[in-house]
Amino acid sequence: MGRVTERRRVIRIRDGAATVRPDTLVAEEPLEIRLNGKPLAITMRTPGDDFALAAGFLVSEGVLGSAGDLANIVYCAGATEDGSNTYNVVDVRLAPGVPVPDITLERNVYTTSSCGLCGKASLDAVRTTARWPVADGPAPMRLTPGLLAELPDRLREAQRVFDRTGGLHAAALFSPEGELLDVREDVGRHNAVDKLVGRALQQGLLPLSGTVLVVSGRASFELAQKAVMAGIPVLAAVSAPSSLAVDLAAEAGMTLVGFLRGASMNVYAGEGRIALG
Amino acid sequence: MGRVTERRRVIRIRDGAATVRPDTLVAEEPLEIRLNGKPLAITMRTPGDDFALAAGFLVSEGVLGSAGDLANIVYCAGATEDGSNTYNVVDVRLAPGVPVPDITLERNVYTTSSCGLCGKASLDAVRTTARWPVADGPAPMRLTPGLLAELPDRLREAQRVFDRTGGLHAAALFSPEGELLDVREDVGRHNAVDKLVGRALQQGLLPLSGTVLVVSGRASFELAQKAVMAGIPVLAAVSAPSSLAVDLAAEAGMTLVGFLRGASMNVYAGEGRIALG
Repeated sequence: MGRVTERRRVIRIRDGAATVRPDTLVAEEPLEIRLNGKPLAITMRTPGDDFALAAGFLVSEGVLGSAGDLANIVYCAGATEDGSNTYNVVDVRLAPGVPVPDITLERNVYTTSSCGLCGKASLDAVRTTARWPVADGPAPMRLTPGLLAELPDRLREAQRVFDRTGGLHAAALFSPEGELLDVREDVGRHNAVDKLVGRALQQGLLPLSGTVLVVSGRASFELAQKAVMAGIPVLAAVSAPSSLAVDLAAEAGMTLVGFLRGASMNVYAGEGRIALG
Repeated sequence: MGRVTERRRVIRIRDGAATVRPDTLVAEEPLEIRLNGKPLAITMRTPGDDFALAAGFLVSEGVLGSAGDLANIVYCAGATEDGSNTYNVVDVRLAPGVPVPDITLERNVYTTSSCGLCGKASLDAVRTTARWPVADGPAPMRLTPGLLAELPDRLREAQRVFDRTGGLHAAALFSPEGELLDVREDVGRHNAVDKLVGRALQQGLLPLSGTVLVVSGRASFELAQKAVMAGIPVLAAVSAPSSLAVDLAAEAGMTLVGFLRGASMNVYAGEGRIALG
């Protein structure tokens, strides 16, 4: 529990010379997420923020919309043969009256990849199941390229574990003024976003109108979908987006920025929120 | 089908100046893998090599061991409401007599994340289900750091799509002499490895004894597991490994190299195959 890093022996080779030393690695362990006692999904994650991860995953899946939808989240003891608690199984109990999704085999197949059967069908599914439109908040958002350019460095500074392991993805939420609201790290980028969204749910902050989500790597369809499901109006990625991520952003009215590096960036959708020239 | 890249309009911002131009993005679409007609998993992938991807996924899952286990693989028409073929659903038919895994809900939950319930259980599961030990091939492998150092550049040179999109992961197989045997690209690193392993199965090359698998990013548990299931004795990653990937490599007798950059690298397990000093 809370094993964010682990130590292992490593042989370092530098210009042909080998030295043995301990190395710090990012911890990776499976987390099984159960819903009202039934297995729903397993994700490989970095331990820590597990309840937030489970809650955020269920926001992405359209099951949870507010802290009030949640009765409680607990670690399951007795999930292993010897009855011990591995802290790798969490059970999410919904509040009375909250609809429990029909977890059939078909449903289950696709919860884990967070998408529907084909590009078109999945875009439709996201559009119809999102609880909130992506929205600017009280004031229309107009982000300058200069402000956006500063965000990756602020994200990087806030990453505590990356410096020790080089193995963690990060996701951070910023205000339209560039203020860091929260940052989460995980061996899986999608988990980092789920942890961020789950924490926001726990704090009663959903939907995340008027925020900017910055991710350390690429913008896949899955990440774009998680942003849309949380009502986030701007997603900015340090690396490349995929075609389906761009299509989803355009349909949902979300701003999608890619290759955000120094003073250069590409705007793939929702350019109305970027102050150009 | 075969849409490896797609074109989208992008606004490029460089030092405050914005220009509109077409951009090439890596294509990402869901692929549903069915086994004897029943849905098994969905993965977000770059179209192309879909049959190899499905076959390699089933090698990782312990279902397929040779080309003879396979009756055929087809795209499913009629999977959408209008009956058209999206080329996003493939059905793998097993040869007569090949055991069909019991696809229960629990089983299904974990096919998609390729792991068991907890670290220990999943390591045990891999050890007991792997068909082949990881093996050196006809001659014992002794790789020099100098040879390993050259492999990332050879992988990079063989990546055709990355240069255009910046959005693709790659996995390549090399001989112990550093000869490139095959390379596959995908928006998902695990898919690139599945495509590589699936092609090897189709060509009758499993187990992949005496080969070196090089991946463009990090070495997660999932990638290490796929390498072990294919009998690959050496996995080298350009970035960091996770704790569970190192543990699995050590248990399986696989050599795991991380942070393979220029003349420097870290050896996390199986150092007997590295010619040190």
